[in-house]
Amino acid sequence: MADKKRVYTFGDGRAEGKADMKNLLGGKGANLAEMCLIGVPVPAGFTITTEVCTEYNQLGKDEVVKLIKADVEKAIADTEKVMNAKFGSKGEAFPLLVSVRSGARASMPGMMNTILNLGMNDETVKLVAEKSGNEKFAYDSYRRFIHMYGDVVMRVEAAEGEHDPFEMVLDKIKKEKNYDSDADMNVADLKFVVEEYKKVVKNKAGRDFPTDPWDQLWGGITAVFDSWNTPRAILYRQKENIPGEWGTAVNVQAMVYGNMGENSATGVCFSRDAATGENQFNGEYLINAQGEDVVAGIRTPQEITIIGSKRWAERNGTPEDVRKAKFPSLEEAMPTLYQQLFDIQRKLENHYKDMQDMEFTIQDGKLWMLQTRNGKRTGAAMVKMAVDMIEEGLITEKDGVLRMEPNKLDELLHPVFDKKAIEKATVLSKGLPASPGAATGICVFHAERAAELAEKGQKVILVRRETSPEDLKGMYAAEGILTERGGMTSHAAVVARGMGKCCVSSAAGISVSHDSLKIGNKEYKEGDFISLNGTTGEVYDGKVATIQPTLDGDFGKLMLLAEKYTRMYVRTNADTPADAKVAHEFGAKGIGLCRTEHMFFEGDRIWAIREMILAEDVAGRKKALTKLLPIQRGDFYGILKAMDGFGVTIRLLDPPLHEFTPNDDATQKEMAEKLGVSVELVKEKVESLHEVNPMLGHRGCRLGNTYPEISEMQARAIMEAACDLKKEGFNPKPEIMVPLIGTIKEYKMQEQIIRETAEQVIKEKGVKVDYMVGTMIEIPRAALTADEIAQAAEFFSFGTNDLTQMTFGYSRDDVGKFLPIYLEKGLLKHDPFQMLDQTGVGQLVEMACKKGRETRPSIKLGICGEHGGEPSSVEFCHRTGLDYVSCSPFRVPIARLAAAQANLR
Amino acid sequence: MADKKRVYTFGDGRAEGKADMKNLLGGKGANLAEMCLIGVPVPAGFTITTEVCTEYNQLGKDEVVKLIKADVEKAIADTEKVMNAKFGSKGEAFPLLVSVRSGARASMPGMMNTILNLGMNDETVKLVAEKSGNEKFAYDSYRRFIHMYGDVVMRVEAAEGEHDPFEMVLDKIKKEKNYDSDADMNVADLKFVVEEYKKVVKNKAGRDFPTDPWDQLWGGITAVFDSWNTPRAILYRQKENIPGEWGTAVNVQAMVYGNMGENSATGVCFSRDAATGENQFNGEYLINAQGEDVVAGIRTPQEITIIGSKRWAERNGTPEDVRKAKFPSLEEAMPTLYQQLFDIQRKLENHYKDMQDMEFTIQDGKLWMLQTRNGKRTGAAMVKMAVDMIEEGLITEKDGVLRMEPNKLDELLHPVFDKKAIEKATVLSKGLPASPGAATGICVFHAERAAELAEKGQKVILVRRETSPEDLKGMYAAEGILTERGGMTSHAAVVARGMGKCCVSSAAGISVSHDSLKIGNKEYKEGDFISLNGTTGEVYDGKVATIQPTLDGDFGKLMLLAEKYTRMYVRTNADTPADAKVAHEFGAKGIGLCRTEHMFFEGDRIWAIREMILAEDVAGRKKALTKLLPIQRGDFYGILKAMDGFGVTIRLLDPPLHEFTPNDDATQKEMAEKLGVSVELVKEKVESLHEVNPMLGHRGCRLGNTYPEISEMQARAIMEAACDLKKEGFNPKPEIMVPLIGTIKEYKMQEQIIRETAEQVIKEKGVKVDYMVGTMIEIPRAALTADEIAQAAEFFSFGTNDLTQMTFGYSRDDVGKFLPIYLEKGLLKHDPFQMLDQTGVGQLVEMACKKGRETRPSIKLGICGEHGGEPSSVEFCHRTGLDYVSCSPFRVPIARLAAAQANLR
Repeated sequence: MADKKRVYTFGDGRAEGKADMKNLLGGKGANLAEMCLIGVPVPAGFTITTEVCTEYNQLGKDEVVKLIKADVEKAIADTEKVMNAKFGSKGEAFPLLVSVRSGARASMPGMMNTILNLGMNDETVKLVAEKSGNEKFAYDSYRRFIHMYGDVVMRVEAAEGEHDPFEMVLDKIKKEKNYDSDADMNVADLKFVVEEYKKVVKNKAGRDFPTDPWDQLWGGITAVFDSWNTPRAILYRQKENIPGEWGTAVNVQAMVYGNMGENSATGVCFSRDAATGENQFNGEYLINAQGEDVVAGIRTPQEITIIGSKRWAERNGTPEDVRKAKFPSLEEAMPTLYQQLFDIQRKLENHYKDMQDMEFTIQDGKLWMLQTRNGKRTGAAMVKMAVDMIEEGLITEKDGVLRMEPNKLDELLHPVFDKKAIEKATVLSKGLPASPGAATGICVFHAERAAELAEKGQKVILVRRETSPEDLKGMYAAEGILTERGGMTSHAAVVARGMGKCCVSSAAGISVSHDSLKIGNKEYKEGDFISLNGTTGEVYDGKVATIQPTLDGDFGKLMLLAEKYTRMYVRTNADTPADAKVAHEFGAKGIGLCRTEHMFFEGDRIWAIREMILAEDVAGRKKALTKLLPIQRGDFYGILKAMDGFGVTIRLLDPPLHEFTPNDDATQKEMAEKLGVSVELVKEKVESLHEVNPMLGHRGCRLGNTYPEISEMQARAIMEAACDLKKEGFNPKPEIMVPLIGTIKEYKMQEQIIRETAEQVIKEKGVKVDYMVGTMIEIPRAALTADEIAQAAEFFSFGTNDLTQMTFGYSRDDVGKFLPIYLEKGLLKHDPFQMLDQTGVGQLVEMACKKGRETRPSIKLGICGEHGGEPSSVEFCHRTGLDYVSCSPFRVPIARLAAAQANLR
Repeated sequence: MADKKRVYTFGDGRAEGKADMKNLLGGKGANLAEMCLIGVPVPAGFTITTEVCTEYNQLGKDEVVKLIKADVEKAIADTEKVMNAKFGSKGEAFPLLVSVRSGARASMPGMMNTILNLGMNDETVKLVAEKSGNEKFAYDSYRRFIHMYGDVVMRVEAAEGEHDPFEMVLDKIKKEKNYDSDADMNVADLKFVVEEYKKVVKNKAGRDFPTDPWDQLWGGITAVFDSWNTPRAILYRQKENIPGEWGTAVNVQAMVYGNMGENSATGVCFSRDAATGENQFNGEYLINAQGEDVVAGIRTPQEITIIGSKRWAERNGTPEDVRKAKFPSLEEAMPTLYQQLFDIQRKLENHYKDMQDMEFTIQDGKLWMLQTRNGKRTGAAMVKMAVDMIEEGLITEKDGVLRMEPNKLDELLHPVFDKKAIEKATVLSKGLPASPGAATGICVFHAERAAELAEKGQKVILVRRETSPEDLKGMYAAEGILTERGGMTSHAAVVARGMGKCCVSSAAGISVSHDSLKIGNKEYKEGDFISLNGTTGEVYDGKVATIQPTLDGDFGKLMLLAEKYTRMYVRTNADTPADAKVAHEFGAKGIGLCRTEHMFFEGDRIWAIREMILAEDVAGRKKALTKLLPIQRGDFYGILKAMDGFGVTIRLLDPPLHEFTPNDDATQKEMAEKLGVSVELVKEKVESLHEVNPMLGHRGCRLGNTYPEISEMQARAIMEAACDLKKEGFNPKPEIMVPLIGTIKEYKMQEQIIRETAEQVIKEKGVKVDYMVGTMIEIPRAALTADEIAQAAEFFSFGTNDLTQMTFGYSRDDVGKFLPIYLEKGLLKHDPFQMLDQTGVGQLVEMACKKGRETRPSIKLGICGEHGGEPSSVEFCHRTGLDYVSCSPFRVPIARLAAAQANLR
């Protein structure tokens, strides 16, 4: 361990690190080094590597301090030399004050606050005052330092029910002296505050504020490492899928001051517009201020460019003269420095070939860059910038595609809340972001009623304890869906995502009855407005205005690029002609999963299937199925037509029959009357269909093999629709899929029924339609015996939802009881229903692909689980050699982009 | 295909086949050939191979007849030559009549009836009459032939509600002529019957009875092939695990006649006693009869030996003079032929080195052997014969072990019905043979009540719709258990097998309410007697006497031999000191699975766990757990003591918590009162614990990782018990097992709790106890990532019950809806919960063993699923290199034998 380099210095046009050492130095550290190397003025300093953080977690504080002590002392000496200052100066030089910042590979705003002005104590403050000629600045810096250090390192916290103790000191003096702002304090006030702050620390932390700058420094460094494992940081990592092993680097850097007088300033700027993507330099700054003032919102920050400044004034109704006088842009206030900054941001963007988010400080007329990084941006900006940069020749097409965050396209595909409206809205609860988008409408508690009101033009939110297939009609009609229960892959969530409809599930602290929604003390009845943000999971009180997205030209250009660079194609999961059409417009090349059972719930169709369930024998079932045949044929006709020329994979009946029978007395009675039998018989049937673990029960091909007449009817409906289309000059490509296969024999029995029926229909209709027969791979045993199954199956479609359920032994419906705890405790990195578990479930997928191809090299392989629209899972599918992924219509563009990226990587 | 030999002839001391060609010639055919080769007198004939049966099923009748026509004609010619007779003789020679029999690799009594006298028609019958000088015999043979051929080949069946039409002809004539038996008919009667029989055939089959002997022969041969796939044969194969691909051979053999007069006879005999195993030649015969008469029961067959004859007379109270006059033994009636037969049976037993079951016919003073095969035997006879033969030097120890059918040991380990009593008993219903043995007692419908009555000395049968852990007490108290629902691995079945207690589940047509059992129109109330046969699944009306088994010396000798030749050792699944003791006596070397949750249901213990479930926080749970600690410690103390010196694998809490909460209002109220909370709170808790798929829910290590205090308490109880025992001079070897692991992280979190607690207890107690920590492999993902898990786990125990559930996606509780249909349709060969699915589930087991050993070569591997006591699965475990198998106490001897056999094979 001794031979490893742990500390990297930078400054004065030189650096030991560089941009591509991000994993070791963190994003911030690598960029500071890189900036030095390309001649951007950066205050000197050094970076302690991320590996040291890992050592810190393994070996503990004392060991690690021992390991890096000499290196850090040497690095401080280097910094002193470059900055011509002395850490812990006793008067021999200007005191070197430093900032201490965390810096992981990926930006982690959830982590540690920065410590500024480290090195200040009762002696150095005097030297700073003396050497800067600005005593107020010196003591202001000192009190800021104690505050920050007390907070971050010494963990000074407010007692319960109290305000921040440091703030209380300030409030007290400002009240006594009748000051409006902190800036009004004079030197005496600040000196008093410093002494009071020290007492706060002593009082709350139980020890004196450290006066030795070296003690301060080690406290700061170790606090950064400690901050890696705070609950807040862990939570953030979980949400952003950042592994805990990465660790954070620590950046120690000489302070420069934007608050040394009117010739000083500080600000943040962006090389392009992060919201719209427009190629327009922009940012904010404040004269005579430290960085935190810009973001704190105490003073109104000023725009950097004239154009930005003018737009700001327009938005705020500020007259031009007031703007010029009180809020001049940097371009106006410090034109030479502005030009320097402008050139630097161009240089940086050209160097990093991406939009830069920068921090700068002007100290006494000299410009310093404190940080640069690729800027965060909205989905729309992401797309526009990439397309612009490609057209400008700054980046290649491939880079443009690779740079996308596929999930961000979601923002472009769903309604969003109006930014101003949402700022004023009250958050009532937060649930799972089950299906993205924003929705506003009146609460309605029954599906039928929702459909009824929607028909009258009402915007409704369907509010349910949980949804079942019987709610489909209401879900279609609603703007959004809110459920008390259910996870990310509950019925409501899956179906809503399929519909591209906003859904929030498992909302905290809500309680839904048959006619009301309770949140805390509030009760919402039918007609009361609420709003949902399915992207964040937030539930709002009342109406909040939404904005419909428009898919502009850049989006189209990007999709064409994705098309150009992809190997794998993207299909969609769609059960209706309408969904198929939407997906086709989003670029889906076929349907990977059409769930025939969803068709059974619409209108009166449910009665035919209930009649079939009640039938005592084959003849009775066949009679009922005859009623379903023309209905299914009609649906298949519409879907095959919407996807003309592309493969349409239709899965035969999958859910257990009890999903179609009513559990409540009233509907059971209705069922008895409608079908002319006794209520007892209905109840008996319902009871006999009950299952302890329906997930592992009588469903899928187990239905088709025990009631072959169902498969026969469905095969007939598909093939009749296809033949009819063919006659009309279309080119239907049905792929009939058998669900829940565990053994080759199960498959073969279904295949035989399908092929016999298909050949029969082709003969009857006198027209030839090509069709395929294949199977879902969703039972572990099917994956394990894929070589056998491929002897007969022409295609495999991986049903990774069920495969995940069975490989983990997790019921999607019940996982809510322990999965959140597992994620919190780090027992699982990700929810395996959202992100494919490549180690376990993926192993089965790979095995099945390999075995399947060995038996049948031409076998068509795809995935139709929810994972088909999740970028990391799409990449896995590409690597594993699948032919296509299939996902819900509104995920199609995301999957297309992810597929292209996977191919380019 | 043309070059393959399809027909094998035999006769006159020569044969083309031999004994080891059983797969090709079937058991009967191979043995006929072998008998010829060793000089036993056998009527000549030929065998059509089993491969032809497979070709028949693939190519159809016409193709196959073409394939073998020349060979069959040649073989008939050979037979004619040897027997000096002519098939379809027109008078030039004695007519050759043949029998046609099926003969598969394994004996299949479920299959085809034999056709005798084939070759008879209106012409040959006259020749037979003439040449034999016995017209009555000739016409009797002819009418028998038409009857059999009509039944078997031409499928003449009785109309619904009518009697057999052939029997009706006989009945009519016997009534008219006032005859007592068929034998009273004279030649004229028989001629009339023949003509009437022909009419019956024409009438029922719609075509004339074939008169051409060749037509008859091809009809017979193809009927044998057809009989391979009758529902009856398929059912038998399923039950006996015989693959459908094996096919049957067809044996065509010259007829010899035991009914050619008083100098003729026919019989069956056994070289040893099939019931007791005694080395005593025995059998039955009839003078002037055909073989079917011996088994038909119309005439009383006579014993072959004098000793047998005397025993028979004693049993039936037949005076010695009557016996000698009317029922002399063959030894007395035909002493010379008896001696020939005696020598032949010795020769055959010595040749085949096993007890032989033989058929013979004496035709006009000449002895012919028609068949020999290894005889079926009872479990007791199987053991005795093997031990005797080893001691006689006839077979080696290894052969003796290999010859056992392990499952038959079951008969030796459980009570059985008294043979005579059971003959008179009325079968009420047939269910699944869920746990072997016989039981008789009064119906009781509640567990508590069963325990109460049993305490008073009543023999009770616990009758339940289905059982739950709350019924444990009653199950212990009962003689047997009868349930309306549930499969072979339902709670009732699994627990009963563990207790060695008779259980019948899913009994057909029964309906259980809270106070009665309805079977058909009969209703049984508390106090009414019923009897159960858990080995066959039969339910009987009233009391039926049972006999307790005694494990005699031969059983012990056999177990010692098994011990000598085994590699893998056998553990037991036991949850109580009592079970552990039983298993130890049966030779279990340790416990492979101790389910701690079963301990929670006894007496008042349930209240402590319910208190824990109701607790709102960790402190509340810990308080309740403190009450459970001494109880668990006591149990562990007893179990570790009973298995002193052997490893005891204790699984931490596994079932979902809702198994411990009551669902009925009354007990919920009781719970509320007992624990001092509101009923609403109890109901709320019960509701919140409800799961859609509990099998895949919050259970196993998911409990231990969300409520670590449970694992801590259990680890403490185990280690305290172990330390206490160690102090007392015992040698406890606890192995703590974490259930339901899917990821290494889950395991590690549990391991840490266990090891920290264990080290703490060891420190407290001041005594060192070696312990192991390991895990179940029962989730597919655990098998897939076994290399990771073995980094930390010291042992794997394969929970193949759950692994089968998840690998197949079958819920054991719900599989009853489709598994029977799957077995019937041949979609599954075996119930995978009874016989390990080596292709799928086994693949995961092999993978996990390989991966586990790669990471940790010393890892201990075992199996604790129900499969651990099933012979073919035990063999798989041996091949896969497991260290041990574990099964319920009463399966231990079976597993020991199977393990030895696996090692010897």
